Amino acid sequence: MRIVVDAYGGDNAPEAVVKGCVLAARELDIEIILTGNKKKLEELLKTENYPNDKIILYNAEEVITNDDSPVHAIRSKKNSSLVAALDLVKKHEADAVVSAGNTGAYLAGAFRILGRIKGVKRPALATFIPNLKGGSIVLDVGANADCKPENLLQFAWMGSVYAENVLKMENPRVSVLNIGAEESKGNDLVKEAFPLLKKSGLNFTGNIEARRIPYGDADVVVCDGFVGNVVLKLTEGVCLALLSMLKGVFLKNAVTKICAAALKPSLRDLKKKMDYSEYGGAPFLGIDGVVIKAHGSSNAKAFYNAIRSAVVFASTEVNDKIRFLLGAQKEETKDER
Amino acid sequence: MRIVVDAYGGDNAPEAVVKGCVLAARELDIEIILTGNKKKLEELLKTENYPNDKIILYNAEEVITNDDSPVHAIRSKKNSSLVAALDLVKKHEADAVVSAGNTGAYLAGAFRILGRIKGVKRPALATFIPNLKGGSIVLDVGANADCKPENLLQFAWMGSVYAENVLKMENPRVSVLNIGAEESKGNDLVKEAFPLLKKSGLNFTGNIEARRIPYGDADVVVCDGFVGNVVLKLTEGVCLALLSMLKGVFLKNAVTKICAAALKPSLRDLKKKMDYSEYGGAPFLGIDGVVIKAHGSSNAKAFYNAIRSAVVFASTEVNDKIRFLLGAQKEETKDER
Repeated sequence: MRIVVDAYGGDNAPEAVVKGCVLAARELDIEIILTGNKKKLEELLKTENYPNDKIILYNAEEVITNDDSPVHAIRSKKNSSLVAALDLVKKHEADAVVSAGNTGAYLAGAFRILGRIKGVKRPALATFIPNLKGGSIVLDVGANADCKPENLLQFAWMGSVYAENVLKMENPRVSVLNIGAEESKGNDLVKEAFPLLKKSGLNFTGNIEARRIPYGDADVVVCDGFVGNVVLKLTEGVCLALLSMLKGVFLKNAVTKICAAALKPSLRDLKKKMDYSEYGGAPFLGIDGVVIKAHGSSNAKAFYNAIRSAVVFASTEVNDKIRFLLGAQKEETKDER
Repeated sequence: MRIVVDAYGGDNAPEAVVKGCVLAARELDIEIILTGNKKKLEELLKTENYPNDKIILYNAEEVITNDDSPVHAIRSKKNSSLVAALDLVKKHEADAVVSAGNTGAYLAGAFRILGRIKGVKRPALATFIPNLKGGSIVLDVGANADCKPENLLQFAWMGSVYAENVLKMENPRVSVLNIGAEESKGNDLVKEAFPLLKKSGLNFTGNIEARRIPYGDADVVVCDGFVGNVVLKLTEGVCLALLSMLKGVFLKNAVTKICAAALKPSLRDLKKKMDYSEYGGAPFLGIDGVVIKAHGSSNAKAFYNAIRSAVVFASTEVNDKIRFLLGAQKEETKDER
């Protein structure tokens, strides 16, 4: 298997990307293509110890930054590390792509270059969010700020297939994020989506309130991309803020500092549980290819985990299953008309 | 000043409500009317020690539960503790009302019995959410699941007036909750609201991402009631889940248990900072009256704090200012046409 990685995406690129790829080349039975400034990448790789034949460099000297307008960047920066990476998947020279770069540009590029799976109306960005029972998949988390009820239904299918096949969750419980448990609650979008999900044949367990997400009451949480992005970022923000408050408690005096030292291993475990970099990247589901978005502030370990996610995803039949399920659904809808 | 309290609202009613009122009668220079089953309330008050002339009982034997349909309950249960409480404000026999009951019924009842302030299109439920800098007001958190851009503008005005006059924040920073910092980001609603806020004359500091809410980057966070409800409940859920994980760390072995004991006072402070019951109730802004919603699971202390919030709110000119600002805005809009 061959994974292409955008060496110039993310806050810590290219150094952290290179280190993550070296780790992956050592640990995983794959080849990696790194796109970006070949000269600079060669320099960075010089000091690293890894099986040399497993990392291939692909020169692409332009860089899409977070300040670039997504659609314009994809059109105008043809020789960017991001566009080059997507092109390699399109040409079947790689089985999956990983980038931590400009999310909008990455999604727009994947949409434009790789296209949608037939039957999928709107691809969705899905993220694993850790919780007390392990974690759940939340989608969409930002690809579609405004959605229709049928989009949520498709997100549910795609999330369920991913949870089952990649995350190995058995018969995943699918819920719609809502502001109350009752079917009659919510905004127009979720009120209309509820009956669609109810009759879908999915393991639909009804509405989930945001309060219950951290308790793991659902395996797949479905919402529009605006709400999902709020959930993702707020979870991260609240965790970080609480941990920083806790740090304040620990630094208070000599006694608390001793306690902090004694608790360190357990607290490290806790922090690890909540740490995005442990969980690999976010798949862009519904795209005709395996596209993994790594967190913007990914470190080497996060890149390694994102690459591992890409490998697992690419070795499953998730996209074929989505094609089958949503293609078939489309036919059904036609028949009903 | 006289505050009416619905004795039969909330998970811990009427016991916790009565205890909260007793506390308020002792500590604050106010009279309290308690609505509910007079006989039962008399029994509960018998064992309490408080200035007897400061708590007045008002018999209302019906109870609106969380299972009741909001609008139907308000119409059919005329003799409920909730409707009686709202009626007393309407008849100017009380200056403010506090309830922890069925949120939908409370909001519908306030809307129906007390009405809106002239010029206000949609009243909004506003909640104080604690953060690293103290806390901010988030609105709407559930009264309006679907909103228009001009609603968000009015929420911003009402939240700003409340923050300045009740929470004593100077020139509060108003932000729109969005999925990116740039003006062009977001769903249709917030994209259209942004220019309205920009030219409003408010201290508008642009978009805020959910990640930054716990860091206190804004004093007033404006959003639709669906998103706001998600923010409120997710913040609560993540805090509780993290604290329960932390508890697990502390109970691990003898050493960690000793540490927990040593850290207890500081951790109690931290927990207190994050505890909703410390911060009183949520005002329903834009209603022609002072309406405070207490958390459904309020304990005595939370009721006491909600009553205190009601007293502070009722002693300000918040509603007159809202009437002036939004009434004037309406005229302006007319002129523009």
